[in-house]
Amino acid sequence: MIRVSVVGGSGFTGGELIRLLAYHPEVELVQVTSERLAGMPVSTAHPNLRHMSLSFTSAEQLAPVDCLFLCLPHGQHIARYTEFQGIAPKTIDLSADFRLNTPEAYDQWMNIDHPLGHELQNWVYGIPELNREALKLSPHATGAGCNATAVVLGLWPLAQAGVIGDLPVITEVKVGSSEAGAESQASSHHPIRSGCVRSFQPTGHRHTAEIEMILRPYGVTRVDLSATAIDMVRGILATSHVYLNQTLDWRDLMGIYRDCYQQEPFIRLIANRSGQYRVPEPKYLAGTNFCDLSIHWDARSNRVVVLSAIDNLMKGASGQAVQCFNLMHGLDETTGLTFPGLSPV
Amino acid sequence: MIRVSVVGGSGFTGGELIRLLAYHPEVELVQVTSERLAGMPVSTAHPNLRHMSLSFTSAEQLAPVDCLFLCLPHGQHIARYTEFQGIAPKTIDLSADFRLNTPEAYDQWMNIDHPLGHELQNWVYGIPELNREALKLSPHATGAGCNATAVVLGLWPLAQAGVIGDLPVITEVKVGSSEAGAESQASSHHPIRSGCVRSFQPTGHRHTAEIEMILRPYGVTRVDLSATAIDMVRGILATSHVYLNQTLDWRDLMGIYRDCYQQEPFIRLIANRSGQYRVPEPKYLAGTNFCDLSIHWDARSNRVVVLSAIDNLMKGASGQAVQCFNLMHGLDETTGLTFPGLSPV
Amino acid sequence: MIRVSVVGGSGFTGGELIRLLAYHPEVELVQVTSERLAGMPVSTAHPNLRHMSLSFTSAEQLAPVDCLFLCLPHGQHIARYTEFQGIAPKTIDLSADFRLNTPEAYDQWMNIDHPLGHELQNWVYGIPELNREALKLSPHATGAGCNATAVVLGLWPLAQAGVIGDLPVITEVKVGSSEAGAESQASSHHPIRSGCVRSFQPTGHRHTAEIEMILRPYGVTRVDLSATAIDMVRGILATSHVYLNQTLDWRDLMGIYRDCYQQEPFIRLIANRSGQYRVPEPKYLAGTNFCDLSIHWDARSNRVVVLSAIDNLMKGASGQAVQCFNLMHGLDETTGLTFPGLSPV
Amino acid sequence: MIRVSVVGGSGFTGGELIRLLAYHPEVELVQVTSERLAGMPVSTAHPNLRHMSLSFTSAEQLAPVDCLFLCLPHGQHIARYTEFQGIAPKTIDLSADFRLNTPEAYDQWMNIDHPLGHELQNWVYGIPELNREALKLSPHATGAGCNATAVVLGLWPLAQAGVIGDLPVITEVKVGSSEAGAESQASSHHPIRSGCVRSFQPTGHRHTAEIEMILRPYGVTRVDLSATAIDMVRGILATSHVYLNQTLDWRDLMGIYRDCYQQEPFIRLIANRSGQYRVPEPKYLAGTNFCDLSIHWDARSNRVVVLSAIDNLMKGASGQAVQCFNLMHGLDETTGLTFPGLSPV
Repeated sequence: MIRVSVVGGSGFTGGELIRLLAYHPEVELVQVTSERLAGMPVSTAHPNLRHMSLSFTSAEQLAPVDCLFLCLPHGQHIARYTEFQGIAPKTIDLSADFRLNTPEAYDQWMNIDHPLGHELQNWVYGIPELNREALKLSPHATGAGCNATAVVLGLWPLAQAGVIGDLPVITEVKVGSSEAGAESQASSHHPIRSGCVRSFQPTGHRHTAEIEMILRPYGVTRVDLSATAIDMVRGILATSHVYLNQTLDWRDLMGIYRDCYQQEPFIRLIANRSGQYRVPEPKYLAGTNFCDLSIHWDARSNRVVVLSAIDNLMKGASGQAVQCFNLMHGLDETTGLTFPGLSPV
Repeated sequence: MIRVSVVGGSGFTGGELIRLLAYHPEVELVQVTSERLAGMPVSTAHPNLRHMSLSFTSAEQLAPVDCLFLCLPHGQHIARYTEFQGIAPKTIDLSADFRLNTPEAYDQWMNIDHPLGHELQNWVYGIPELNREALKLSPHATGAGCNATAVVLGLWPLAQAGVIGDLPVITEVKVGSSEAGAESQASSHHPIRSGCVRSFQPTGHRHTAEIEMILRPYGVTRVDLSATAIDMVRGILATSHVYLNQTLDWRDLMGIYRDCYQQEPFIRLIANRSGQYRVPEPKYLAGTNFCDLSIHWDARSNRVVVLSAIDNLMKGASGQAVQCFNLMHGLDETTGLTFPGLSPV
Repeated sequence: MIRVSVVGGSGFTGGELIRLLAYHPEVELVQVTSERLAGMPVSTAHPNLRHMSLSFTSAEQLAPVDCLFLCLPHGQHIARYTEFQGIAPKTIDLSADFRLNTPEAYDQWMNIDHPLGHELQNWVYGIPELNREALKLSPHATGAGCNATAVVLGLWPLAQAGVIGDLPVITEVKVGSSEAGAESQASSHHPIRSGCVRSFQPTGHRHTAEIEMILRPYGVTRVDLSATAIDMVRGILATSHVYLNQTLDWRDLMGIYRDCYQQEPFIRLIANRSGQYRVPEPKYLAGTNFCDLSIHWDARSNRVVVLSAIDNLMKGASGQAVQCFNLMHGLDETTGLTFPGLSPV
Repeated sequence: MIRVSVVGGSGFTGGELIRLLAYHPEVELVQVTSERLAGMPVSTAHPNLRHMSLSFTSAEQLAPVDCLFLCLPHGQHIARYTEFQGIAPKTIDLSADFRLNTPEAYDQWMNIDHPLGHELQNWVYGIPELNREALKLSPHATGAGCNATAVVLGLWPLAQAGVIGDLPVITEVKVGSSEAGAESQASSHHPIRSGCVRSFQPTGHRHTAEIEMILRPYGVTRVDLSATAIDMVRGILATSHVYLNQTLDWRDLMGIYRDCYQQEPFIRLIANRSGQYRVPEPKYLAGTNFCDLSIHWDARSNRVVVLSAIDNLMKGASGQAVQCFNLMHGLDETTGLTFPGLSPV
């Protein structure tokens, strides 16, 4: 059994990690920390885990383990970097602290003068479909942004195939309220947040930095992203508009996606052209590690609309972190991630 | 024009009052107070009123008017009683501060030693269907609790007719999130409150005090109320179970309700026994002052199930307050309250 | 009083028209037709109108009136054109039958060989902000598509100002379930439609034809539209991405919008840069005829993101039809359309 | 491996069974039938199962297996009784066809003259917490009604302890839209069903028959049940009001529940009196086989309010059927039923 602990376990990604790791057949979940809830059962924060006897502990009491998951608010890992270094030979950080690969990007997109810029190259960007081999070898993985994961997985095959034209890609993500975290805010007050369709980031979304970090090396000029909060708790649907640099039809495009993703256990390409379920829908992905994709070609504009859906807390955070963990420990990539989702839901 | 001001206008009942009074054809809305937002446009708190130029003022700047509406948190009217006495000859208080008619009731249900117990008899309980004539004559009206309004209007004809048996009445209210007010709380955080079916008051709900204050004089033994929060912003549906003291069938019961309510402009009895819309549904009442009612007789148990639905911020608060205002000023009771609600919605 | 009737009153736009016309101070609502529900009260289809005594009649029994509103399914007005010609001197058609201005457009976008192509020029496209003077003079107005209305009102000032560049405009509309009409379908079954984020028209949406009909004369190359159904009943939020042909900042752009819309009673420009309510949100527009707009400038891409929100059944259909009606009859444009919407909701 | 097939696999309970059985470690899922979708992949009906290659078959092609699950509409098992008899030595029927134990009950509650009344005693009512030993020995189990399961599990300890008084028990169930099945109906049209709080069965609910069948032998006089449809897809919350025949306080009552349920793997008693999560909430049970319970004592009325929540498709249908299956085949009762549910959700 691989011994693991979770730092920062009272939030949403922490809760998902506890759920996944407690039921993971190759894992012993040793400790889960929360300074605020130390001594209390994990179900104080995560009511789905009512039957579990595990309690939160303080980070000061962390015992050595094989792998440490960090679910701290952005900035805290940087601030407490040395504190966690001796705990475990392998670390997986779900925050944004080591996601970007240059200090300049932190400066530009997050307005941060990153004090550990020299460490950035040591953290593998944790999307296995992009970096599988690197993850197998690395002691350090960094989680990818949830919106970035949805967008990048949607565009990756086109970028790899070199068919994206010079025009900027425009992507609109529809997101749920869990993306903003477990802390209550004025904007998350139910009478205000319920039923809302609120564009909270029409321009300037930070995940753009990650998306362009990945795609620019493949010739993508720019990705212009807008984000709209809708009445949903979990889930992301990204609608990406790509103008091609050559004439391709739907079959050509599906060929590109199939070539790229046919071996991927967590990517499902939707090719149905009849029936009810012809597009990715985030609700059917709740609790799963799948990314569902469909592509729609518009002859009029030589444009492809790519739809990609994930559960932001799973493939967009904790599920993908466990997928990375499996790779980093030589396990089958799907171990502990087999829940297929519910329907109806 | 009747000049009115609203004290405490940044909350939900305050917002509804502004909306109603600003469009009321016989009213000049003079001032709306909020200490926190003084100087800001009312649309800072109420985005539906974006086109209005009115701004909040401080309560210290209140000018004399004909009628003052108080939308303060419970307890503040008691604490600041003299402050508001010189402002207007007529006052309508939407809080619970003067709802119960004896200091003993405040002691029992709210754990309050009411310092103005001698004043309680001067405030008319503001449900016009019960107290129309008293309201016409009184300078002081107190709002009724939203849940109490729904339950009392549902049971009133049976109580009047003396047909309720000795067994306790059980009523279960399903309520929306606006009932808890405009302040964000941990329990109102969208990821937690969305989709919830949470029994927040299975026993001991304070509105029981009002309901029994009204119904006990008519021989009702006790009302046992439970309240469940559901994923809804506005609206109440009360399901009340009444065991009769005599054998009556549906037609008899409908006769009792028709006799009681046939002249009421805001009570709609639903008698449809076919079609889609045979029961009261709160969503069709959003923004209206209606109370919709239907009754369902169970021969097996000689029980009648009474369904009553209202908009908690309208007939349960601000709409009913304007209805009282109309009566207190000799206006047609429906003035300014004619919005019929939306469908679909 | 202006005497009006509504043909096809059992659907959603018909229901809204009944609500608006029954409370319109200058209108006598004479008849409302439904073949399926002839003889039944209008509340059979529209539960919000439970207190009204009006019943549906058959179209065969239509009496002459001053103005006729047609809310028939697409294609039926074409098929029954002569049937309605003698009923009223003025007609307002809410269907798509006379929206496009050339037979070629019907052929291209709707796959229809329009048999009354010579009549198309006689129908004024019913967006008053674009065609106010023409509407005042015309006996025939055609409703605009709901999504087209949202998108066009968002882009109109930029098009007028000639600042839209050569790149295609991309717009993503988030829409509610009422857009698909009152007939139940497999895809509208609640367990499936609830919580959904379903891209029902990633490419090829018919409203594109209207949008381009309006904007191409102003140099807009193309509008690429995608539409996503979300868990909402009423409402549209359009997110439009426009690349400019010159460098303008937010103030410049706001100037363009203010110049264009400052006299418009139903356009609200949102300029707040602090506070909770900085963007258009469809939920606050339910039941109103407002179109709320905000603009967001991205220096990085010289792109403006325009957000426009409406109630699809009001400004997107029946409300706008009444606005046209008011103009066509010399009334104040806002008559009968003053409901300001609810908050919270 | 135990070989099983599912008859009637295109509906909601069928879909859940496929999901559970396909991932059940001791089961080989051989066939799933649907006459309408024969030949199509199961994901045509169940989009969560997109990655599965299994296709529907016709019931005519059923091969012999060890256990047959029947998910047919009510009445079809009766009509096709002999058709299924040779397929498998063990059968689990999820319909209501063999739930009640006397023909008289079918006559009274379902208005059916049951042609196989003599068979009724051969079917064990499939709530393991009540009938565990009988299920271990029986080749035939019948699913329990979803609402009945929630109510019965909530009241069972009190009934066993003999503390329920003579007054009728009143229970109000709040239910989601999946309870009505996969077929689209006028009442399930999203614009109508969304946001609804609709009392669809204020009196006369058929599940009353099951509840009283179980509880009357323990001295319960009558259970008066009302059911309200709310805006939820999965889940039931039952609020049951019980007047006691002796004075007991909360600790006494918790003792009764703990004695009854302490060994039960799927019953979670909630005893928290602080924190956010003090009551059962159906949303945290989606996809799980848990029944969460809490009890609330009202000294004023010597009444206990029992709250019980389940997922209607899991503990209320397919999950409980698999629990029965495990018992009938000598497996650990929780096999294949360990998904703990999600939070937030």
